Amino acid sequence: MCAGDDKNCPEFELHHRKFKETLDRERRSFLRSSFAAAGGAAAMTAGGISLVTPQMAAAAEKNQPATRSYHHLPANADTVHWGYFSKKLKPQVEIDSGDFITIEALTHHANDDAERMVKGDPGAESVFLWTKEKKGVNRRGAGPMDASLFGRGAGEGLGVHICTGPVYVRGAQEGDVIELRIIDVAPRPCANPQYPGKAFGSNAAAWWGFHYKDLLTEPKPREVVTIYEVDATGVRIPIRPHFGVIGLAPKEADIVDSIPPSYTGGNIDNWRIGKGATMYYPVAVEGGLLSVGDSHASQGDSELCGTAIECSLNGTFQIILHKKADLVGTALESLDYPMLETKDEWLVHGFSFANYLSELGDKAQSDIYSKSSVDLALRDAFRKMRRFLMTTKKLTEDEAISLITIGVDFGITQVVDGNWGVHAVIKKDIFAGGDT
Amino acid sequence: MCAGDDKNCPEFELHHRKFKETLDRERRSFLRSSFAAAGGAAAMTAGGISLVTPQMAAAAEKNQPATRSYHHLPANADTVHWGYFSKKLKPQVEIDSGDFITIEALTHHANDDAERMVKGDPGAESVFLWTKEKKGVNRRGAGPMDASLFGRGAGEGLGVHICTGPVYVRGAQEGDVIELRIIDVAPRPCANPQYPGKAFGSNAAAWWGFHYKDLLTEPKPREVVTIYEVDATGVRIPIRPHFGVIGLAPKEADIVDSIPPSYTGGNIDNWRIGKGATMYYPVAVEGGLLSVGDSHASQGDSELCGTAIECSLNGTFQIILHKKADLVGTALESLDYPMLETKDEWLVHGFSFANYLSELGDKAQSDIYSKSSVDLALRDAFRKMRRFLMTTKKLTEDEAISLITIGVDFGITQVVDGNWGVHAVIKKDIFAGGDT
Repeated sequence: MCAGDDKNCPEFELHHRKFKETLDRERRSFLRSSFAAAGGAAAMTAGGISLVTPQMAAAAEKNQPATRSYHHLPANADTVHWGYFSKKLKPQVEIDSGDFITIEALTHHANDDAERMVKGDPGAESVFLWTKEKKGVNRRGAGPMDASLFGRGAGEGLGVHICTGPVYVRGAQEGDVIELRIIDVAPRPCANPQYPGKAFGSNAAAWWGFHYKDLLTEPKPREVVTIYEVDATGVRIPIRPHFGVIGLAPKEADIVDSIPPSYTGGNIDNWRIGKGATMYYPVAVEGGLLSVGDSHASQGDSELCGTAIECSLNGTFQIILHKKADLVGTALESLDYPMLETKDEWLVHGFSFANYLSELGDKAQSDIYSKSSVDLALRDAFRKMRRFLMTTKKLTEDEAISLITIGVDFGITQVVDGNWGVHAVIKKDIFAGGDT
Repeated sequence: MCAGDDKNCPEFELHHRKFKETLDRERRSFLRSSFAAAGGAAAMTAGGISLVTPQMAAAAEKNQPATRSYHHLPANADTVHWGYFSKKLKPQVEIDSGDFITIEALTHHANDDAERMVKGDPGAESVFLWTKEKKGVNRRGAGPMDASLFGRGAGEGLGVHICTGPVYVRGAQEGDVIELRIIDVAPRPCANPQYPGKAFGSNAAAWWGFHYKDLLTEPKPREVVTIYEVDATGVRIPIRPHFGVIGLAPKEADIVDSIPPSYTGGNIDNWRIGKGATMYYPVAVEGGLLSVGDSHASQGDSELCGTAIECSLNGTFQIILHKKADLVGTALESLDYPMLETKDEWLVHGFSFANYLSELGDKAQSDIYSKSSVDLALRDAFRKMRRFLMTTKKLTEDEAISLITIGVDFGITQVVDGNWGVHAVIKKDIFAGGDT
């Protein structure tokens, strides 16, 4: 029997009519399920639809103390780890699900202009201290402690971000999801009395930038540092204060370079991870072990030259733990990547390798630097968005694919962090539906 | 002499002070030139800063008649060319610079649901007519007329878009720039009395889609057509009516496949090319020869599954010619790609190959389908944005690169049109500057 598309079939008319009827039925059902009804299935909150349903919120609350505590984690030589994540790190603070915490993040580029970004600041001075007599933070990077590889000191600089933490979340275990609400983000004031009331950031156009082998003017190649004054009230440059690095500890290795982002987050470098945003991270080790670093005053999609405006920031967060058992049938079931929710949008993060630590084998931490492409990251972002729409919004694969092509925007997150990133953005109001 | 960075240099203190002084001077000058003064150099219009300076506007006006004419170009078998651009095409209409014109565009996917998108519409019926007795439009594609390649009929289907045009702009010559203002975009009403007041579009998840070899559910592989009803007043799906194809005729070949976009525009597939936007195209042949097609009701960045919501639209445009001699020292001098300006943004369009017809040699029109990557398109978009900032905004290369990394967003335009696209977006208010 022809599918209604072969005019030479003796029963073409009948088959074609049946085909059209089926098409009509499927079409109507698609329109109803995805655009009208799906909105009803998701929870409506003051800020719009959230991935957290009322049921999930209630389940999470059962694991929270009656009152919320507020914590403050300063950045200094004792509270930071430099250039790596590790499940072996001693937690700097233990918190309960639902608690609030302000975390100070120091830019690892502060020494690009120590006068403006280190001097007079006890926390920053303790971290950057490195004289013949004393080194404030010994390990800098995920490399060997005896510097046997390149002789660049303990950790070998394999991983660069000054991360504050980790924060241990009571009750967090592998398979759970940590919800991180970014309540506030504020620039770290300059502590040098010469620059009262100012804050500064640095942008380095560096050898790992996408532009580096493609320069026009001499001398080639070159690295260039530009120091920016942060003016949160001005409009000259779009101010997008955010954290390049927020992540949990992966389970695959004890010491993990902080540069390539992966399934537990880390150096995602998406400028949307700022005030008002909520991140969801899959928990891989007990307590989650959340750390924050690589703070940015501003960045564009791609972070093309290798850095943003690197700038110390203080962030205030609320951290909520969702237990694995409470995620069944929800949008966050089996979440295996860092997902972003803003007031109006959902974003999935694709990487050239979704979990490079497990995909690339023993040498993953070095191989990742030579294997990435935007094409691979786009492939991963597509797959994650398709799964999101199929699981969260109960679309069929074909409905999901059609919706992706017409309603999802793919942007280039970064091409400078070893494991390159592409994000896929879908607006929530597509699902708000109704007969408007 | 050390550069002020070697603490072992006997004159370190002196060198370091000099280095810092130079840095301060450069920094101040950068901030002043790019963020404050540059705004003054560009023209302020009602819609914000435009690439067209008052001088350019005056020069263009000298070549315009005293009064503006309004033209209407319908879409029918006589006014469309199917699947290709050609400098040899007979113009459908001749206009003067400054004139307004409404151009009807027919989606080449109308036959996906002929009941809703062809039936009762004389223009569409004349175009799609293909019976044993008569074929409304003989050539469909850039291939040979004798169908000696695949036996798929004249033109061989190498190129698919129904393009309305070309429009001949009096006085346009190679090296000039055509400014195309998109005044209005409206869906083509369904002409079938069964569907009064409706308009429809089609989305095909097709074999050339990015998803096609990556399907989850059976039967694999498969193609899926989804018919959408256009509701310009609703909010269920973001309505982004725009033209996938608007372009001038290239000079490199007589018949050019309409699928891969290139330096004179064509199938850019950027959903921002809609109402209120202005496009700038470099003129390659006399009269420019502008054609319009591939109209879309909606699309996301990437057009992942191979098509948008394909939907016939009528567009109203104003076309302004800028002579080469008037472009010296302006943002549009030596423009060699299609550039987009919206109320708030400028966009440069990068492609895997900026001008594939000249770069890929004799077999360019077939080879382009196997050589593209997002990485290459990102490289091209980076270079174009760098040049734009250096020429338009008079930044140094280092200033341009720093600004790109912190203030420019790179998005994936499409990965399905042979010559893949990445666009770079910069907001105009970065340059509006001043001491606010």
